[in-house]
Amino acid sequence: MIGFIGLGIMGSRMARNLQKNGQSLVVYNRTKEKAGELLEHGAVWAGSPAEVSRQADIVFTMLAEPEAVKQAALGEQGFLKEMGNHGIWIDCSTVNPSFSREMAAEAGQRGVRFLDAPVAGTKIPAEKGELMFFVGGNQDDLEQVMPLLEMMGKVIRHVGENGAGTSLKMVVNLMLGQAMAAFSEAVALGERMGLSRDVLFSTLIGGPVAAPFLASKKDKIDQGRFDTEFPLQWMNKDLHLVTETAYELGLSLPLAGMTEDLYGMAKQQGLGREDFSAIYRLYQKD
Amino acid sequence: MIGFIGLGIMGSRMARNLQKNGQSLVVYNRTKEKAGELLEHGAVWAGSPAEVSRQADIVFTMLAEPEAVKQAALGEQGFLKEMGNHGIWIDCSTVNPSFSREMAAEAGQRGVRFLDAPVAGTKIPAEKGELMFFVGGNQDDLEQVMPLLEMMGKVIRHVGENGAGTSLKMVVNLMLGQAMAAFSEAVALGERMGLSRDVLFSTLIGGPVAAPFLASKKDKIDQGRFDTEFPLQWMNKDLHLVTETAYELGLSLPLAGMTEDLYGMAKQQGLGREDFSAIYRLYQKD
Amino acid sequence: MIGFIGLGIMGSRMARNLQKNGQSLVVYNRTKEKAGELLEHGAVWAGSPAEVSRQADIVFTMLAEPEAVKQAALGEQGFLKEMGNHGIWIDCSTVNPSFSREMAAEAGQRGVRFLDAPVAGTKIPAEKGELMFFVGGNQDDLEQVMPLLEMMGKVIRHVGENGAGTSLKMVVNLMLGQAMAAFSEAVALGERMGLSRDVLFSTLIGGPVAAPFLASKKDKIDQGRFDTEFPLQWMNKDLHLVTETAYELGLSLPLAGMTEDLYGMAKQQGLGREDFSAIYRLYQKD
Amino acid sequence: MIGFIGLGIMGSRMARNLQKNGQSLVVYNRTKEKAGELLEHGAVWAGSPAEVSRQADIVFTMLAEPEAVKQAALGEQGFLKEMGNHGIWIDCSTVNPSFSREMAAEAGQRGVRFLDAPVAGTKIPAEKGELMFFVGGNQDDLEQVMPLLEMMGKVIRHVGENGAGTSLKMVVNLMLGQAMAAFSEAVALGERMGLSRDVLFSTLIGGPVAAPFLASKKDKIDQGRFDTEFPLQWMNKDLHLVTETAYELGLSLPLAGMTEDLYGMAKQQGLGREDFSAIYRLYQKD
Repeated sequence: MIGFIGLGIMGSRMARNLQKNGQSLVVYNRTKEKAGELLEHGAVWAGSPAEVSRQADIVFTMLAEPEAVKQAALGEQGFLKEMGNHGIWIDCSTVNPSFSREMAAEAGQRGVRFLDAPVAGTKIPAEKGELMFFVGGNQDDLEQVMPLLEMMGKVIRHVGENGAGTSLKMVVNLMLGQAMAAFSEAVALGERMGLSRDVLFSTLIGGPVAAPFLASKKDKIDQGRFDTEFPLQWMNKDLHLVTETAYELGLSLPLAGMTEDLYGMAKQQGLGREDFSAIYRLYQKD
Repeated sequence: MIGFIGLGIMGSRMARNLQKNGQSLVVYNRTKEKAGELLEHGAVWAGSPAEVSRQADIVFTMLAEPEAVKQAALGEQGFLKEMGNHGIWIDCSTVNPSFSREMAAEAGQRGVRFLDAPVAGTKIPAEKGELMFFVGGNQDDLEQVMPLLEMMGKVIRHVGENGAGTSLKMVVNLMLGQAMAAFSEAVALGERMGLSRDVLFSTLIGGPVAAPFLASKKDKIDQGRFDTEFPLQWMNKDLHLVTETAYELGLSLPLAGMTEDLYGMAKQQGLGREDFSAIYRLYQKD
Repeated sequence: MIGFIGLGIMGSRMARNLQKNGQSLVVYNRTKEKAGELLEHGAVWAGSPAEVSRQADIVFTMLAEPEAVKQAALGEQGFLKEMGNHGIWIDCSTVNPSFSREMAAEAGQRGVRFLDAPVAGTKIPAEKGELMFFVGGNQDDLEQVMPLLEMMGKVIRHVGENGAGTSLKMVVNLMLGQAMAAFSEAVALGERMGLSRDVLFSTLIGGPVAAPFLASKKDKIDQGRFDTEFPLQWMNKDLHLVTETAYELGLSLPLAGMTEDLYGMAKQQGLGREDFSAIYRLYQKD
Repeated sequence: MIGFIGLGIMGSRMARNLQKNGQSLVVYNRTKEKAGELLEHGAVWAGSPAEVSRQADIVFTMLAEPEAVKQAALGEQGFLKEMGNHGIWIDCSTVNPSFSREMAAEAGQRGVRFLDAPVAGTKIPAEKGELMFFVGGNQDDLEQVMPLLEMMGKVIRHVGENGAGTSLKMVVNLMLGQAMAAFSEAVALGERMGLSRDVLFSTLIGGPVAAPFLASKKDKIDQGRFDTEFPLQWMNKDLHLVTETAYELGLSLPLAGMTEDLYGMAKQQGLGREDFSAIYRLYQKD
């Protein structure tokens, strides 16, 4: 049996793909409703994280933030103390590298192997099993769970030691946040100079100077509706994590800092729960 | 006969493509040596811009900056006063929109039609006739010279009225400059966190979060050799033009401003003549 | 007779002090009403700048911006062409150094001596004759008009050649704009941490870390009423002049650039006509 | 007996002033040499923090950072567990507000009263007993130790509850760091425009737009020698604390962020151990 803890938008779809590929699951989530579809298809419900590890040697976690991961692993009903000597824990949550290394150490002390394996991709790729995994940890451990990861993702990259997967995810999100803000400034400037959105979008999107993902954001800008795929306040948080980490490493990243502040100002203006592409609204006149 | 003024890296290659496609040329450049190949293949040398327009109804200019364009067109030996009533002047230089409109007005007063037609692309696309033209001006005028532009470029976009071509070029360069600086910060952070360049490049380049042109910059970063395709000091200048224009339009673009300052600091550190990708060096430890 | 052109808030008060000290004036302003008090006390009204210089060898200008100065001096009814060979023109307007030098050259060609003499101080010091003058130009010329300047100011500093007075004014306004924005951030942070304004103001104002002028801004912040002494949009303009000048000199000033952008964002939010201390409102929650 | 833990540049001078005013001291420092003068004048040496609290009901701490404070208070030989029910702990270290509140809670659980009482002022004021104390905590507790604080400082401000003293210190350091960087940019601009340092310093220093403390920095800039009073890397750290705290409070402070990055870049260039006024060197040409 495979354990899966955290059944939100991403986790529920990832677990379902394991199930579709023939895996038996034991699952836990803070609220039970989210587990509905999985239980219908035969998954076993666990009353606590600890109960998951009593029945599974391989446990996935997909949670919102470090605190939630820590609670599930090391809290009163945490799964880590119950895991056998040969267990593997794969954390797919987006956290910071030093936290991943801390969890790796906690796991190691209990004879549990640990992989940090955050994913690139949102709801649709999660559903289709087309995520990209950035994996930090031991190569042999990765090989053991590779078949499982391949049920959920189309690219599985082994990046390095524990923490490396998380590090790479942080770099990717930095690129994401900066490209979105830069595109917003470019479009705002173009429009103010009298160019139509049509001209701007058709020239930039798909061309050499625009990150390809921007193709999925142009309709939001065009319609002024920023339906949330990735909330602006999380982008702000991820960028804060970047500047925090850079500071710890003795590195100054003024552009990242400026970008964090722009998302911060957008959040202050009440845009935190909209898609992070709503940063565009910062450049619109009152 | 077609006139061509400005035979630098770009202009000489563009003119050569006209010639290869059967056009007779009359050419002028500040220094005659640059015209060598064209003259060998039958181009006529003109002693001044004015002499160009005495022999040609269609004149291209490809010059370094607004001042040079103004001098060629309106200086003592300027070509504009000598152009006939039915002439067309196509300015391919990268300038600011208000300058393009000013030139359009100067041309109009003399019965000359004007197109601003800056290009996207560097040395190689210029040589292969694969540039992209952003054209501002009258549609009929553009159609008249379309066959000529197609000898030099693979995409010819009519963007709008005079100044619109130049405006779009400015937006493209803003995207270019920001993406390069953002990538530099992302790579610097990744390396400091212990990721290898291999992992960083192979993950980011070609993926959804990186502008495709960055593929052509990774070797420079990797080898620490920033052979100049587009000098850093010109990028600094173009970004300054952006913030200047934004200010005139009552728009604040903090990320563009920060990016301008970063290239400015790199210039201050003596990197002005290297490729603009040398901005990466700003993030390396002493 | 002394000529005075530009009778706004500052100019009218400065001219009045000349008058109180026994000088006969010939005055011009775009709108005649502003001259009321001066005319009552015996000043002669001139129908144009040119008419001023027909009656006066010494001409002061105190105008809003370079364009207005240029128009008054060199426009169709400009005063400069009518000034005699021994005339002195003292420009008290806040302009940029290169403009001051350009005016000095224009004056010189006509045998007129030129001083750039911008002032530090607002309405009240202007009224009391307690302004500070920063003077660029020839020392002998300055000495000739020193008695006049002393009627309007309490400190007259000879800074250097033409343009130097204007340069120093620019530095002072940069300090002013940055200190106001920095104070706004510090107060906003303090309040958000739970400190009262009373504690913040009483600790900072008058202490070693706050510029003394901030004493005059604390009531505006406290009452949330930003009655205009120096409009925010002018501060934005002056800071733009700073970054523009820095760029021309090959100098990057990221903090000045950031500060310009902050005033720009405040202007975008409709605060342009309020006092520049309204920058504080940028840090208040919606 | 009064306990004093932390005998660095500041602490040793503060403790000496208590002694001069007739107080008997029991002292501890990581390295004993620093205690030399105090021991000569009768202070008792304690082998550990715990030993201090066995002999004293009132304990002062003056340490470099939160971790050091925590260690002294709660470490294996920590003083907190040994303090009697009626003890008072006064922490004069510069830390962050949430840390002060955490220490207050730890103390409270053991029946010990806590005051956060960071100081403004450097070596000389410490020696002269002219520091300024910002005190957070209970008013009665403050009154009890007021005579002691008055032996070391000339101004004792009760700011509010625990954490408020620390909050105010953070605001003061933000102002300090921004004013120094702003002054550096202003002087660099002035010089590049051709003004002499003499003119710049004499106009700005002591005038309305410059923070008074800058008077003590001008000689460092002038001589290009940045003898350390307050190390640049600590300023970088304090500003990082500011942006971290602002982020936690949902507040964006772009100017503070930019300033942090500038000190960070200076640190990267090897200026971390010089005085924080060495930020000026960031604006000097190579």
